[in-house]
Amino acid sequence: MKLIGLDSGLRATGWGIINVDGNNLTYVAAGTVRVPTKMSLAERLATLYRVLNSVIETYRPDEAAVEETFVNRNPKSTLKLGQARGVVLLTPAMADIPVSEYPANVIKKSLVGAGHAGKDQVEMMVRTLLPGASIDSADAADALGVAVCHAHHRRSRARWDSGVQVVHASTPAE
Amino acid sequence: MKLIGLDSGLRATGWGIINVDGNNLTYVAAGTVRVPTKMSLAERLATLYRVLNSVIETYRPDEAAVEETFVNRNPKSTLKLGQARGVVLLTPAMADIPVSEYPANVIKKSLVGAGHAGKDQVEMMVRTLLPGASIDSADAADALGVAVCHAHHRRSRARWDSGVQVVHASTPAE
Repeated sequence: MKLIGLDSGLRATGWGIINVDGNNLTYVAAGTVRVPTKMSLAERLATLYRVLNSVIETYRPDEAAVEETFVNRNPKSTLKLGQARGVVLLTPAMADIPVSEYPANVIKKSLVGAGHAGKDQVEMMVRTLLPGASIDSADAADALGVAVCHAHHRRSRARWDSGVQVVHASTPAE
Repeated sequence: MKLIGLDSGLRATGWGIINVDGNNLTYVAAGTVRVPTKMSLAERLATLYRVLNSVIETYRPDEAAVEETFVNRNPKSTLKLGQARGVVLLTPAMADIPVSEYPANVIKKSLVGAGHAGKDQVEMMVRTLLPGASIDSADAADALGVAVCHAHHRRSRARWDSGVQVVHASTPAE
């Protein structure tokens, strides 16, 4: 099963694809989309959509994970970030790929073991967990990080779900 | 020539199509997209995209106009609004339709003659300028309003452009 992680920012959007085989995670690809700022906003969003869509068509991930965005103190920046994020969430959804969202502290905890880890620690852990990964930006590292977080959470969710089923099965009928 | 106006809100997105023939504006169609809130955010954005895309495919407007969003004091609302707005700007851009943005006060001034007109005045003016319009929500009225504003601005821009050319033509050579 393949997962795509996406990290939307004001200036750049990172993406990262990993392969999940049981407990084994392997790096597939990663990159950063930077759209020329001289285009109109609508054209920039269309370019972002087209590039992410071609990534999805190339690697055909089964599930997607996106970081829940940090709300900026500057309302104009928050609106801009929201606009890019709308397109980032839309792209996998239009390809019928389920999208999960994770808060930043959950992603950090999943990778480093602490919710308040720094950017550098996250990137180092991503490089350790995914040997051979080619990471061209902090956004690409974050995107791989959210993909790894999703892989961990899928696994524990699957364990939990099967546990719940067992409990139900062994509960005496009322 | 046909124009589409779009008004993105937190809960609903209005759209309105008008026909422009010289100074003559006529109503073509309008509506409101409300997406079920029980869907995931990504699925809601995908539904919004699909509905707006079917509107664009049905009416094939030549140009699009969108209101510049009011930045809310609540950062979470601003982020949500941004996400919807990203999709609203993206949809015409993906169909190669140029998108213009207008601040709310410019739209109000274009319709009512005053930048601080109320919602009711805008809707009344839209109904007066576009007799026979079927308007099912304030968002649809706002969408038709931004389309009318774009029609006015296109026209004055065209006059201005041709005026500039005349001035250049009559300027003595240096």
